[in-house]
Amino acid sequence: MPISNNVAIIGVGVTKFGELFEQSYNDLMIDAAYDAFADAGVDPGEIEAAWLGTAFPQLNGLLGDDGSSLSDPLNLPNIPVTRVANLCATGMEAVRAAAMAVAAGEYNMVLAVGCEKMREVSPRGSLVARHITETHPMLTKGRTAPGMFAVLANRYFQDYGYDKSTLAKVAVKNHYNGSLNDKAHFRKPVTEDQVTKAPLVADPLGLFDCCPTTDGAAAVVITTKEIADRLKKDYVLIKGVGVSTWGGYFTVQYRPDFDFVGFPSTRGAAKQAYRQAGITDPRKEIDLAECHDCFTITELLNYEDLGFCDRGEGGKLITEGITTLEGSLPVNPSGGLKATGHPVGATGVRMVSEIVNQVRGRAGKRQVRNAHTGVAHTLGGPGVIACVMVLGR
Amino acid sequence: MPISNNVAIIGVGVTKFGELFEQSYNDLMIDAAYDAFADAGVDPGEIEAAWLGTAFPQLNGLLGDDGSSLSDPLNLPNIPVTRVANLCATGMEAVRAAAMAVAAGEYNMVLAVGCEKMREVSPRGSLVARHITETHPMLTKGRTAPGMFAVLANRYFQDYGYDKSTLAKVAVKNHYNGSLNDKAHFRKPVTEDQVTKAPLVADPLGLFDCCPTTDGAAAVVITTKEIADRLKKDYVLIKGVGVSTWGGYFTVQYRPDFDFVGFPSTRGAAKQAYRQAGITDPRKEIDLAECHDCFTITELLNYEDLGFCDRGEGGKLITEGITTLEGSLPVNPSGGLKATGHPVGATGVRMVSEIVNQVRGRAGKRQVRNAHTGVAHTLGGPGVIACVMVLGR
Repeated sequence: MPISNNVAIIGVGVTKFGELFEQSYNDLMIDAAYDAFADAGVDPGEIEAAWLGTAFPQLNGLLGDDGSSLSDPLNLPNIPVTRVANLCATGMEAVRAAAMAVAAGEYNMVLAVGCEKMREVSPRGSLVARHITETHPMLTKGRTAPGMFAVLANRYFQDYGYDKSTLAKVAVKNHYNGSLNDKAHFRKPVTEDQVTKAPLVADPLGLFDCCPTTDGAAAVVITTKEIADRLKKDYVLIKGVGVSTWGGYFTVQYRPDFDFVGFPSTRGAAKQAYRQAGITDPRKEIDLAECHDCFTITELLNYEDLGFCDRGEGGKLITEGITTLEGSLPVNPSGGLKATGHPVGATGVRMVSEIVNQVRGRAGKRQVRNAHTGVAHTLGGPGVIACVMVLGR
Repeated sequence: MPISNNVAIIGVGVTKFGELFEQSYNDLMIDAAYDAFADAGVDPGEIEAAWLGTAFPQLNGLLGDDGSSLSDPLNLPNIPVTRVANLCATGMEAVRAAAMAVAAGEYNMVLAVGCEKMREVSPRGSLVARHITETHPMLTKGRTAPGMFAVLANRYFQDYGYDKSTLAKVAVKNHYNGSLNDKAHFRKPVTEDQVTKAPLVADPLGLFDCCPTTDGAAAVVITTKEIADRLKKDYVLIKGVGVSTWGGYFTVQYRPDFDFVGFPSTRGAAKQAYRQAGITDPRKEIDLAECHDCFTITELLNYEDLGFCDRGEGGKLITEGITTLEGSLPVNPSGGLKATGHPVGATGVRMVSEIVNQVRGRAGKRQVRNAHTGVAHTLGGPGVIACVMVLGR
């Protein structure tokens, strides 16, 4: 059977996100998984297979390099545990793999965990060191994530007349939402003035336009709709899932569809997911979204790529307040990567957990009204991979 | 639908394995994939999703770190391409993930590729450097693969009375088989005398008891049985697949079932795969196997763990010639890791390709008689993960 409408998420768990020097990689996974087990009402011994999403195992002594990094600390011997990795889409890919296995009928009760510990790393293990020592020499000459996304921001400003104040509104919204989320890395609201006057990281992106690096884990327990019905669980269905892999960021010679103001990967993944979910007009049929706001500019481009507005209209959406908690299409009610932080392998699983909680009406102070159908979206690396998942009743 | 008997492999491709300084990582993947497309009779444009198995992306500028490493060189934009990694079981995990997706009905025509380029690496990117710089300090004090497996060989000798000459027979058999395989890394037969007198690597394992590090890639095209029937392809079905993840090698305090003369992970994975395939007596129902002979001792223990003989009888099986090409249960007709080499991510896919070719009667000089049902088996890292797949008509 296909995943769509046949696979249910019956439990979610998310650790505190932040600078967690007092917790090991293993601690984080255990906390997230046991919260998900408790939410699902299942015993760890009922788990028949698991998937682990960690993008950067070398940051912590190769933890997360293979499935045993999950099965050992959770004491889940003899079952299949597989690591998947797809840059920043890693976590959602773990959820997708788990869903696929349930849809295939191979297993009835499975676990997907995303984990990343990014704040305490060996000097050689850091992401910057990794880039310098392990990639192509040309790529070591200053290509950083803020630098890459800044190019899009400048082009977006030029093409559509927006400026730093437009970006700042994304940061203000997401920091406010994060202030309502006790799992978020940053919990202080910021003002537009603070954002626009913050130190520059890569012009025009300032400190508050960039998401932090963060420690954290998240987990979901997945089963069939049939079993979820029998367990009378307060579950949420996967309505559709799409992944699109697409050429490199600056390789416009290979991918003429890249115009520096949007990502073909997101558009491709959304098309697949919406088709499966039967969504023809995302503006009307989607009630809320968690999207990949690694930088404020990315969230605006995501609005357009996910079909929430026309090309060039992303800036208007934020300016008009459409995507705030009180707006008609709240985006990143959790606080997004911007405020919750971005432990890469965990992010996609956390997003799915947020949508599940919103749809179940369990999002507390940041509960979105009429949250029936939600979208989670992650964007990997320099736009090369996107994963979009539609969740609902 | 479950994978078992519903998922078909309709095309395979394997590059030359060896020291391939003249071919890039991308070259290898392209060669393997296009050979598989040609064998399957499908156009690259028909591929709807793909999985990439690479275990060590840092060896070559992070190539293989995510799915775009496969989609870019193959020019497969906009489809989902996911990297899976599970140490030496990586390649077979890519095949399993692809099979799962077809079984779930998400895609009809998919590709699994395994690739590793291990001979030409930056000093910092080497596996030894990786171990020293990226793992726990305790693990950097001389823990090498030959050293770990040597412990098992000594224990096996003590428990069952075998000696270096028993191990040597595995090397002699596999080097002979490799001499018949024009894709193998090593193609010269060796004598028992050469093997036992070779320089020691880790007592009792000498140079010819250890598989080499190698460059290579392999690919398979997978579809449903229904479509394979319609295409009238000379296809082979996946009859069963199992994965078992199990605690670390030396952590006997956590895993009392580890006795240093066999791997619970292999036994667990075989149990799952045999159950799916309906195999109750592997000695009678399996016609041939490709198993993980990273070291000669490992092949003997695999015989026992895969149920080809009782515990302690592995040495007898090789001594009696049961597992030679002419024996009643040929093992590693390709030459195994021992002679074909071990480009980690590629190995599992190569093994599956070998079984597919054997079952289709296309194995040339090394064709096994009456090859109807075969087993492929990979063992990850220090025994922590095993994958077993049963293939047949």
